[in-house]
Amino acid sequence: MNKKIRVGICGYGNLGKGVQKQIAKNDDMELVAIFTRRNPEDVEKQTSAKVVPISEVMEWVDKVDVMIMCGGSATDLPAQVPEVAKYFNTVDSFDTHAKIPEYLKNVDVEARKSGNVSIISVGWDPGMFSNMRAYADAILPCSHTYTFWGKGVSQGHSDAIRRINGVEDARQYTIPVKDAMNKVRAGENPGLSTREKHTRECFVVAEDGADLAAIEKEIVTMPNYFADYDTTVHFITQEELNKNHSGLPHGGSVISCGVTGDTNKQVIEYSLNLDSNPEFTGSVLVAYARAAYRMKQEGMTGAKTVLDVPPIMLNISSRDEVIKKML
Amino acid sequence: MNKKIRVGICGYGNLGKGVQKQIAKNDDMELVAIFTRRNPEDVEKQTSAKVVPISEVMEWVDKVDVMIMCGGSATDLPAQVPEVAKYFNTVDSFDTHAKIPEYLKNVDVEARKSGNVSIISVGWDPGMFSNMRAYADAILPCSHTYTFWGKGVSQGHSDAIRRINGVEDARQYTIPVKDAMNKVRAGENPGLSTREKHTRECFVVAEDGADLAAIEKEIVTMPNYFADYDTTVHFITQEELNKNHSGLPHGGSVISCGVTGDTNKQVIEYSLNLDSNPEFTGSVLVAYARAAYRMKQEGMTGAKTVLDVPPIMLNISSRDEVIKKML
Repeated sequence: MNKKIRVGICGYGNLGKGVQKQIAKNDDMELVAIFTRRNPEDVEKQTSAKVVPISEVMEWVDKVDVMIMCGGSATDLPAQVPEVAKYFNTVDSFDTHAKIPEYLKNVDVEARKSGNVSIISVGWDPGMFSNMRAYADAILPCSHTYTFWGKGVSQGHSDAIRRINGVEDARQYTIPVKDAMNKVRAGENPGLSTREKHTRECFVVAEDGADLAAIEKEIVTMPNYFADYDTTVHFITQEELNKNHSGLPHGGSVISCGVTGDTNKQVIEYSLNLDSNPEFTGSVLVAYARAAYRMKQEGMTGAKTVLDVPPIMLNISSRDEVIKKML
Repeated sequence: MNKKIRVGICGYGNLGKGVQKQIAKNDDMELVAIFTRRNPEDVEKQTSAKVVPISEVMEWVDKVDVMIMCGGSATDLPAQVPEVAKYFNTVDSFDTHAKIPEYLKNVDVEARKSGNVSIISVGWDPGMFSNMRAYADAILPCSHTYTFWGKGVSQGHSDAIRRINGVEDARQYTIPVKDAMNKVRAGENPGLSTREKHTRECFVVAEDGADLAAIEKEIVTMPNYFADYDTTVHFITQEELNKNHSGLPHGGSVISCGVTGDTNKQVIEYSLNLDSNPEFTGSVLVAYARAAYRMKQEGMTGAKTVLDVPPIMLNISSRDEVIKKML
């Protein structure tokens, strides 16, 4: 058995915990430390790995092969990853699509200087969905590709509802419109507005005596988040919310339709149906952490995306075994 | 605009014609010649490219960047590809799964000697389905992956029926069992026999006065091809066959289900719904021909599989553009 890949986790929320559980399922890896901005003594860890203040990360240069960055995309990752890439290989799930090119550039500068490999924007979207969009576009150059999300919990939308006056708690589901998906699958290449692609369903716990009509109106008219969608609002108790809506399921589909020859329709669909969004994202991060380690071993450096990584790099088994089993 | 990638096609049956149509849809490529074992004058070509006897292939060393090998897996490709790899980059769709490791080795020896890149077993299965099995296995290490084929025409099974005495023509459809697929999608990880995964439906044109009962019995009891399946046989006229069953549709699904954490089911599904099997396979070959050319440009050599190719290598656009658009 080769030496295990020594992994560190930076950030210990839902995603960091998902990563930790998945490392335990990959025999070629070991979790050596969790890095946190909190007081390490306040962290309830579910592992024997050490919890270390993130300020001490540089002391682990010789003890960690890959750092899995589990902070948020808004402020954590843009600040942390270029710093950490000065000392470690990294993977992260930066998911602000419009800022990816700039972020890639910033991380690339540091990773090249230090000779490390950083794989950015890993997860399912961006991540596996990006791979699928790229494959379909390459195979069917004039095809149309549609991405649908859900049914699943959007944490950003749930948070937006929670910030409304009179709301105690909330959970928002993004739901793809079946009719729109079926049109795409049938190769109709429909023009679809935002409203025609997804609906939004909200489960809201209101404070005693709150004005429910006012809350509902504030939700359904909220710009960016809800105004462009058909949104339904259900008021329920905290008990119901805890009992029926405590999970973080998600998923979605990338559907591409193109024509070959004169008229032959070719439809490609990739779908995910996930009981736990953070655990699945964590699982993708762990597989690409292995790839980052291997790419560095092969002498590569700089910031990469999932599109730069051959599938063979992700698997725990040897190339010969994977070819024999998977091809 | 860079110089176009100069492509040759070896073998001009359904697959070669599909490749030819697809090259015309990729602006960075040009078809320079079709190589055939037939008398070039007997080939009805649908292109202005030259038709050349395959024996003259070596005269094209400086005129072709990638050779797309469109022969059959039984005898053509194992003989031709190691020979052609001595002079050219190649891609092929060798699909005898059990013999892939040996074939890879044989092609690798020649491609390394000549400094060329050969990507083998490209198409949808093996090919894109192999990529999907490998991704799922890497992301969810203890998952179960199931491959279903169809609904689609199996040319091998159609040929087997045509060889029966009293049969004039035939078309065989492989059909996945919906109930089995739904069990897999539900994450039940069912044990499925051959019979439980697929059924077979045959449309047969019999000769005048043929013993239909005997033909039907010979089909449904045929070892390897039909005996292990529930098979239905319909006798129809040649006119009906030509009218309703002249296409070569196919497709299928790779469905993986794994568990993360303690109990969270994660289901990944990749499905193809293809009006034309040879045109889709041809489209995948064309995308990987681009990759073979680029890998050679980057100094790589030897035999590769789809698993060795990063998605970014397949796309006509630059890396920056693909990352911006697809990620």
